[in-house]
Order: sequence, then structure tokens, then C-alpha cells
Amino acid sequence: MGKRMAAEGLGTFWLVFGGCGSAVLAAAFPDVGIGLVGVALAFGLTVLTMAYSIGHISGCHLNPAVTIGLWSGGRFPVGDIVPYIIAQVIGAVVAAYFLLFIASGSPTFDLAVSGLAANGFGEGSPGGYSMGAGLAIELVLTAGFLMVILGSTDDRAPKGFAPIAIGLALTLIHLISIPVTNTSVNPARSTGPALVVGGLALQQLWLFWLAPALGGLVGGAGYRLLFAETSSRPDVIGDGKAG
Amino acid sequence: MGKRMAAEGLGTFWLVFGGCGSAVLAAAFPDVGIGLVGVALAFGLTVLTMAYSIGHISGCHLNPAVTIGLWSGGRFPVGDIVPYIIAQVIGAVVAAYFLLFIASGSPTFDLAVSGLAANGFGEGSPGGYSMGAGLAIELVLTAGFLMVILGSTDDRAPKGFAPIAIGLALTLIHLISIPVTNTSVNPARSTGPALVVGGLALQQLWLFWLAPALGGLVGGAGYRLLFAETSSRPDVIGDGKAG
Amino acid sequence: MGKRMAAEGLGTFWLVFGGCGSAVLAAAFPDVGIGLVGVALAFGLTVLTMAYSIGHISGCHLNPAVTIGLWSGGRFPVGDIVPYIIAQVIGAVVAAYFLLFIASGSPTFDLAVSGLAANGFGEGSPGGYSMGAGLAIELVLTAGFLMVILGSTDDRAPKGFAPIAIGLALTLIHLISIPVTNTSVNPARSTGPALVVGGLALQQLWLFWLAPALGGLVGGAGYRLLFAETSSRPDVIGDGKAG
Amino acid sequence: MGKRMAAEGLGTFWLVFGGCGSAVLAAAFPDVGIGLVGVALAFGLTVLTMAYSIGHISGCHLNPAVTIGLWSGGRFPVGDIVPYIIAQVIGAVVAAYFLLFIASGSPTFDLAVSGLAANGFGEGSPGGYSMGAGLAIELVLTAGFLMVILGSTDDRAPKGFAPIAIGLALTLIHLISIPVTNTSVNPARSTGPALVVGGLALQQLWLFWLAPALGGLVGGAGYRLLFAETSSRPDVIGDGKAG
Repeated sequence: MGKRMAAEGLGTFWLVFGGCGSAVLAAAFPDVGIGLVGVALAFGLTVLTMAYSIGHISGCHLNPAVTIGLWSGGRFPVGDIVPYIIAQVIGAVVAAYFLLFIASGSPTFDLAVSGLAANGFGEGSPGGYSMGAGLAIELVLTAGFLMVILGSTDDRAPKGFAPIAIGLALTLIHLISIPVTNTSVNPARSTGPALVVGGLALQQLWLFWLAPALGGLVGGAGYRLLFAETSSRPDVIGDGKAG
Repeated sequence: MGKRMAAEGLGTFWLVFGGCGSAVLAAAFPDVGIGLVGVALAFGLTVLTMAYSIGHISGCHLNPAVTIGLWSGGRFPVGDIVPYIIAQVIGAVVAAYFLLFIASGSPTFDLAVSGLAANGFGEGSPGGYSMGAGLAIELVLTAGFLMVILGSTDDRAPKGFAPIAIGLALTLIHLISIPVTNTSVNPARSTGPALVVGGLALQQLWLFWLAPALGGLVGGAGYRLLFAETSSRPDVIGDGKAG
Repeated sequence: MGKRMAAEGLGTFWLVFGGCGSAVLAAAFPDVGIGLVGVALAFGLTVLTMAYSIGHISGCHLNPAVTIGLWSGGRFPVGDIVPYIIAQVIGAVVAAYFLLFIASGSPTFDLAVSGLAANGFGEGSPGGYSMGAGLAIELVLTAGFLMVILGSTDDRAPKGFAPIAIGLALTLIHLISIPVTNTSVNPARSTGPALVVGGLALQQLWLFWLAPALGGLVGGAGYRLLFAETSSRPDVIGDGKAG
Repeated sequence: MGKRMAAEGLGTFWLVFGGCGSAVLAAAFPDVGIGLVGVALAFGLTVLTMAYSIGHISGCHLNPAVTIGLWSGGRFPVGDIVPYIIAQVIGAVVAAYFLLFIASGSPTFDLAVSGLAANGFGEGSPGGYSMGAGLAIELVLTAGFLMVILGSTDDRAPKGFAPIAIGLALTLIHLISIPVTNTSVNPARSTGPALVVGGLALQQLWLFWLAPALGGLVGGAGYRLLFAETSSRPDVIGDGKAG
């Protein structure tokens, strides 16, 4: 379990530093900034790259909602959920502090103004979207994400391509929903920046545990009930033991 | 058939909510919006991700023109066409209403102004393109799309890569034609937003059934006549039974 | 040979209509245009999608410089060069006329102002680059393109991935060189628009046959001399007979 | 070794001309420039395309930090480090001079103003980031890069996909860090432009050898200690002998 927790911690560091880092450091860079399309690409590529690199170690969840959804989908043992989530949150928090250190190296960075790519709704939403919209979109997109994860690692799907499908699903999710909630679908990713910036982000953090966790449960159980066969291989995403 | 219709319905929901959602929510977001390149990427990734996830269930058509084209290409039984199309249209309509709900969570959203990424020509075309141009480009691009689908799932093509080719073909198609018709090549995708916004979109909906359906027929039959061998495996895209 | 010429013709139509079409119709669309990054993506995806779809028919060259380079690399019979090039040029010219028809459906299109994504140098270069720069960059990038084609289809390379490498190499080439020559590396792609727009584009067309053809020769022969083993499989790109 | 050095030299030429070329020639092209997202894509695609093309020849390092990291990860013989690095630096320097030649073909190019995509910190950083931030981010991102390289070529990872993971990891790294240091993670890539432009770029070159080399060492050794099994196949990235 130590090796698997190390993989989840390092991988979630990569996800949060890469995704939030691209948003904070490069999205609005004058004239040539990467914009939301670059941020969406960055988040997806953190998962694509790590899924090929540590999928055989831990299954590369990097996300408590994925861990929960894989359990509800019948692919992950209940006793491993808590250690996985602990490793993911630690990785995310360390990434947020490291990002703060890097951003502070800029002469113009102001944490109060720039934030740290925290998630939010209402006043905390990039486009001012309501709590209801935020909750609904996070739940539905996380459920869809789990469907992609369980489907692309199904024994009947082509072998080896799951990291492409899963990583690019995260890119797709960000292409849709950054204006609504800044896109979470991942409670660990939300927790890192929220702990560093505090205030509104911390007050609204509950939604980014609740909605993705529910979405993960629904997506995992939904795939299992609708589409699963009796036996499925864990493949890249799974408990990491069969990799 | 129930399982396959569920897959087509959920998959088409993902396509319409993801593609049109990225257009409505994120394309023109101030300063950092994803633009048409992000929308093109989103549409393609909905298909890429679902093809890896439910290709083994239903073949992942998500599109009446694809279903028709696979039939004319000799890969899909005529009796399954209607249930597939029903499931696709239901998924698309539910997605359009869900997108309306999310968009309405923004303080500035106005359905009459923003629309819902409906397709159109003439007055309804993003760039004011004529009906003739719209009809021709939808027909030709759908035919090309079917050639890619039938070719990349041909028994002689590399195994497992078809979802990448097919998804990115849809991205390519959007990179070319959003200014002309807002890009359909998919009657179900056109029907969802048209039902929600009504008016011009609904009046012009006929073209986005006619042209893609014709294009699908031509592309499917063309590949069969020009390039098919006697036997081809259904692979990822097909009737879903052989997955 | 008829089947292979049909594949080359249709594929080159797809390349020229897709690549030049994205440039003419969508690159500079107000506010949300796809820009050069979208055009680069579109050109690459035309090749990626067709290589998976007709690679097993004709090898999917879609480009006289590729056909010549595969010959100089020892992978293509000399007697098939001319029919391949004829099919490619026909596909490209038809695509250019079809693009003219679509573009003319816009109320604001003016061929003299917008052009048709023709290639050029000096006065004809998007950034005003000199003939020397244009010749050098076309030659070097085509040589590199052939190295990627021959390398990724080498018997020792991973199987099935060549269309990804080759398609994205064309994207890369466009990301670098659109400002210099509008990027050719493909005499057929240059010929289509030049015939339609005439004038300067037609006068400068010679360079876009000379430089890519030389680059193809150098790249093909270079890979063969430096890296080839005695026997190599033709794979996706090749004479199409072994697909 | 001659054949492998030729591959490393040509491949690093491709990386530096492609990556820095896209930045210098196309990033800020008026209205439709590719921006940092295009540059990030270009750098990644140079590696993705070459890894499929010459991975079977030399392992396709194209980067002294990768060579060092593969050694510290136990996958590369110490005696081959110096020849590899020499070939990489030669390829990078030739690419920088060739880029200078192309750029000079533009009537508006001024080396003193445009630079040549050199790396820097403080005054030399695109966003004015401090030396500490530059050092930290280069070290951490190079370490992560090596983790991806060693993980995706691990014997337990899916076969054939490593070039996608590794190339897109380089894209990801650029999406995050261009504003900070213009992104190096590759001492050869930094050396080429620095030698051509001289001045500040040359004075600051030490950091872009030190930080990536340290990052490579840490990432390579870290993966080996945390995750490696007793035996691993060299696959695409490795010493090139087992390809």
C-alpha cells in the first residue's frame, strides 16, 4: 500500500500543479495566453501522462470521486478507499503550496486578486453561475467521467487506450464547465487551492466534495447495473494489483 | 436491445451536452474563451471518449446519419435503425434541456440572444452562408465522416484506433464548418437544441436531417462499393454485438 | 490500381478541403476564429483520419512529395509514382473548386481578398518571408516529414501508431511555417488553390513542387541510408499492397 | 554509436527548430497567432513524432536531462552519456542557426527584439519570474518528465503508447511554465538559442543545465527507488539497442 499511496500522492501533485498551474501562470498571460482551452488540455494531459506512468502501480485514480466510483462500480475494495483519498489530498495540498511559491516569484502576483484556480459557485463561480447549476453540472460530469473510466477499462474495450480516453474526458469536462465552477469533478483538486486561499473557496468546498462524490457513486453504480458483465479486468484504472 | 438503446441514449446525451455545452457556456467567455477550436475539440472528444467506453455495448453511433450510413455500408441490420434513432434523439433532447437548465444558472444568460448552439443556414448560419452551401457542406462532410468510420473499423485497419480516428474526424469537421451551419452532420444533435429554442432553428431542422442522412447513405455505400472486401469485422463501430 | 487511385483522390480531396477549408472559412472568424492553431490541427487531422481509413487501400500518401520520398526511401515502386500523383492532383483541384463553391455561399466572401489558402513567398507569403526562406523551410520540413513517415512505419516501430505520428507531424509543420509560406510540403495541396485563384499563386507554384519534391527525396534517401535495415514492412504508409 | 548519434542529432534539431521555430515565427503572428498553446503543442509533437520515428534507433532522448535521468533510473549505460549529449547539443545549435536564417527572411525580424525563444529568469523570464521560481519549476517539471518517461516505458505499462505519453507530457510542461522560464527542461534546447543570441541568455544558461540535470537525476532515481521492479524493458526510450 505504501508504494500505491506514493503513486497516488505524486500523481495528484502532478494533476493539481499542472492543471491549476497552467490556469494561474499561463491562462491569461498577455497576448499569447493559453486561455481555457490550454487549461482544459493541461488538466487532461496530467491524467493521460500519469495513467500511462503509474497506472500499473496504483491504477492512477488521483481523485477521491474516482476512487469512490470505482468502488461503487465493483472494481475497488472498500478498505483501500481511505488511504487512497488521504494520499490524494496530501498530494493536492502540497501542489497548491508549491504553486503559491512559484506564482509568488512573479513581480505582479497577488494571491487576493489572482486566486489559485479554486472552485466555486455563485460569487465564487468564474461566470457567476448559481449553486444549483454548479451542483448539477459537477454531479453529471463526474458521473459521465466514471462511465468513461469504467467503460474504457472494461474487459471488452480495446486494451491500452484507456488513459487516452480518460485523460481526454477530463479535457472535455473542462472545455464545458470552467465558466460554471472552474471545474472540479475532483474533491482533492478543490481542496488544495481552497486550503491555501481560504475564505470563500473554503466555505464553498463542501459542494466540491458532495457533488463529485455523488456523481462518482451514480456513474460507477450506473455502469455496473447497465453495462457490466460478470467479470471485468481492472486494467490501468482499478486497484493497481492486476496491472 | 434495451442495453444498447441505453448506451446510445447516454452517449448522445454526452455528445450534445458536451459539444453544445462547450459552445454555449465557454466559447465566448471573456478574454479566455475556448473559441471554435475548443468547441471543435469538445465535439470530437465526446465521440472519442464514448467510443472507447460504450463501443463494445452499442457500437457507439450517437448519430442517426451514422446508423443509416452503417446500414448502407452493409454493417448494420435494417431492423435496428429505428430503435437506435429513437434512443439518440431522446438523449439529444434531454441534453438540450439540461444545458438550458445549466445556462439559466448564469445571471446574464438570455436564450433569445445566446441560443443553444442550434444549426442553421442563411439567417440561421453563424456566418450567413446560403442554404446551398449549408446543404452541400453537410452532405459532403457526413459522407467523409462515414468513410472514416467504415475505413478505420475495416478488418484491414489497425485494431483499437478507430475511436481516435472517428472522434478526431468530428473535430476536423467542426474546425471547417462551424461558420457555415454551426456544424451538424448529426440530425439528433440538431434536433435537441432546435426543440428547445424553436423558431428559425425548428423551421430549418429539415436540412439537418436531409443532408446528413443523404451524406451517410452516400458515404456508407461509397466505401462499400469502392473499398470493401467481402467480409469486414464490425469492430468498435458496428452493431455492437461483436464487440 | 483503380481502387488505389480512388483512395488517393478522395483522401487528397479531404486533405485540401479540410485544411484549406478551415483556413478560409474558420481561421479569422470574428472573436472565436480557430486561428493558425486550428488550421494546423485541421491539416494534421485530415491525414490522421484518412491514414486509419484508407491506409490499407493505397498507403494514404495524399502528397506527391510523400510518394516520391517513399520511392527514394525504397518503399514504393517507380512505376506507380505517376498514377498516384495524377490522382492526388485531381483530388486537390476538385477540393479547391468545391471550397470556392462553399465560400461563395457567404455574403462577404471575395476571392480576390480572401484567397483560397494558396502558398506563396515574398509578396505571396503571409508574413512577407523571402524566397530563400520559403525554399529552405519547405525543403527541410518535407525532409523531416519523410523521416517521420519512414521511421514510424519501420518494422521496428510500434505497430498501428504511424497515422498518429504522421498526422501530428503535419500539424507540427503547420504550427511552425504557416507565416512563412502558408505551409505546403505538398505540391498537390499547393496546386489546387493556385489553379483556382491564378495570378501570383500560380506564378509561384513552381517552388511548391520543387522544394517539397527535393525534401521528399532527401528525407527518404536519408532515412534509408542512415537508419534502414535490409527489410522493412510497408505498414500503413507504403504501396498499399501489404496493408 | 554513429547511427544513434545521428538519430539524436537529427531529432534534437527537429525539437529545437520545431519548438523554438513555432514560438519565433508563429506565436505572435497578428490576429491568428498560435500563442503559447500552439508553442506547447509544437514542442510536444516534436518529441511524439520523433519517438515513433527514431525510438527504435537511439531511444529518442533529444535531451541531456533525459539521458542523465535514464542513467540514474538504471536504464542507460554511463559510457554512452557523453556522446549522446554531444549529438544533442550539436543538433540544437544547428537548429538555432537555421531558425535564425529563416527568421531573417522576414522583413520585420530583429534578433535583438524578437530573440530566439531563449530561456531565462528574472529579467530574462517572459513574466519576470525570479531565479528561485525558475530553478524550482525547472527542477520539479524535469523530475516529473522523467517519471513519465520511466513509467510509460516500464515493462508493466501498455506497449507502444509511451511516445504519446512522453510527447504530451512535454506539451503539458510548456502549458504550465512558458511564462516562468520560457520552459527548458532540456539543456540542449536552451543552449542552441543562447549561443545564437548571446548576452543575457548566455549568462543565464547555467541554470538551464543545472536545474534540468538535477531534476532528471531526482526523477530517474525516484522512479527507480519507489516503483521499479527488478527488470524493466527499455522500450522506445532507453538505450535504443533493444528497440
